[in-house]
Amino acid sequence: MSRKIILYIATSLDGYIAEEDGAIDFLTAESSPEVGEFDSYTQLLERIDTVVLGRTTYDQLVNELMPDQYPYEEQKSYIITHHPIEGTDQLIFTDERPEQLIQRLKSEEGKDIWIIGGGQIIAPLIANNLIDEYVITTVPILLGQGISLFHEMDAAVQLAVVDTTIENGLITSVYSRVSE
Amino acid sequence: MSRKIILYIATSLDGYIAEEDGAIDFLTAESSPEVGEFDSYTQLLERIDTVVLGRTTYDQLVNELMPDQYPYEEQKSYIITHHPIEGTDQLIFTDERPEQLIQRLKSEEGKDIWIIGGGQIIAPLIANNLIDEYVITTVPILLGQGISLFHEMDAAVQLAVVDTTIENGLITSVYSRVSE
Repeated sequence: MSRKIILYIATSLDGYIAEEDGAIDFLTAESSPEVGEFDSYTQLLERIDTVVLGRTTYDQLVNELMPDQYPYEEQKSYIITHHPIEGTDQLIFTDERPEQLIQRLKSEEGKDIWIIGGGQIIAPLIANNLIDEYVITTVPILLGQGISLFHEMDAAVQLAVVDTTIENGLITSVYSRVSE
Repeated sequence: MSRKIILYIATSLDGYIAEEDGAIDFLTAESSPEVGEFDSYTQLLERIDTVVLGRTTYDQLVNELMPDQYPYEEQKSYIITHHPIEGTDQLIFTDERPEQLIQRLKSEEGKDIWIIGGGQIIAPLIANNLIDEYVITTVPILLGQGISLFHEMDAAVQLAVVDTTIENGLITSVYSRVSE
C-alpha cells in the first residue's frame, strides 16, 4: 500500500476555491472558525509528512496569510514553480510537472501527501486520476464567480462516497478513487 | 409562513446536472438506484403540490425518460416556455419569467413548490435569492464537462448548512436561505 495522495480543500457551494483575484475571504468570514479548529484538519496533519503546493499559493501563504510562521514546518514542502529557487531539505522548489512529482513521491517511502493547490497543480492530478482521497469542505455560499476547483476534462473520473459530516457549520465530504 | 421554494436536484461532484447534449446517464448508472428509492425524494413529494420546469426538461420527460406516464400527475405542473400551448388545470404552459412565476406562486396558498429545472429556470431564481431550500444530491463522479447547475452571478448568495447524509452511495446535502 503506497502513500496516499489527498486533496483537502474548501470550496464555495458553486465550486470556487477563491475569488477571481485570489482572495479567500469567504473561507474566513467572521462566522467561520479558524482552520485549526476543524477535527478533519487535525486528522489530516496526523496522516501526512509532505505537502505539495504551487508557487502562487506559497507566496500567498508566506506574504499574506501566515507571514509570521510558515504553517508546514513539520512537513516536507514541494513548491512547484517555473523558476525554482534554492530551498532547504524541507522546502523544495521544483519545476517538475505535478503529475511527475506525484508519481515520484508515491514511489518513495513515507506518510501520506497533501495536495494544497492551487488550481494549476490540482487539475492535472485529477485528470490523471492521481488523487486517492478527496476531502472537500463546502462553505454554504454561492460566490457567483472566481477560481474553480474543477477544470474541464475530456474523460470522466469515477469516485466513491466515503463520508459526509457537518463541522462548524460547514459540510465536509470524503470521496475515494475507485480505479487505477 | 409562505410556501417554500425547493431546489431538489442531483449533480456530479464537479457541478454538472447533465452532459453537454442533455444526457443524464451518470444519474442512472447501473450502480445507482431508481430515484423513487430515495427517502429524500419521498419526503419531498409529501411536502409539495406544485412543480416548475422548463420546456426542454418537460419534453425530455414525456418523450424519453417517462414516456408511459407523466410522473407529476398528482402535482400542478408549470412549464415555462417561450411558446405556450394549451394545457389543462394541472398542466400549465406559461411564458412568464421564472422569477415572476415564482413570486406569484409564493403569494398564493398551497404546499411547497419544487423547482425541477433546467438551468435556464434555476439560474434567475438563485440570482434573485428566491430558493428557500437547496437539496443537492452529489453523484461521486467528475464528468469533466456538461451543463452546470450554477451559473456565474454578479453578487454572492449566503446560505446556511442544514443537513448532510449518505443515501444509496450518494451524498444529499441541504442548505437554506439566510436572508430575504
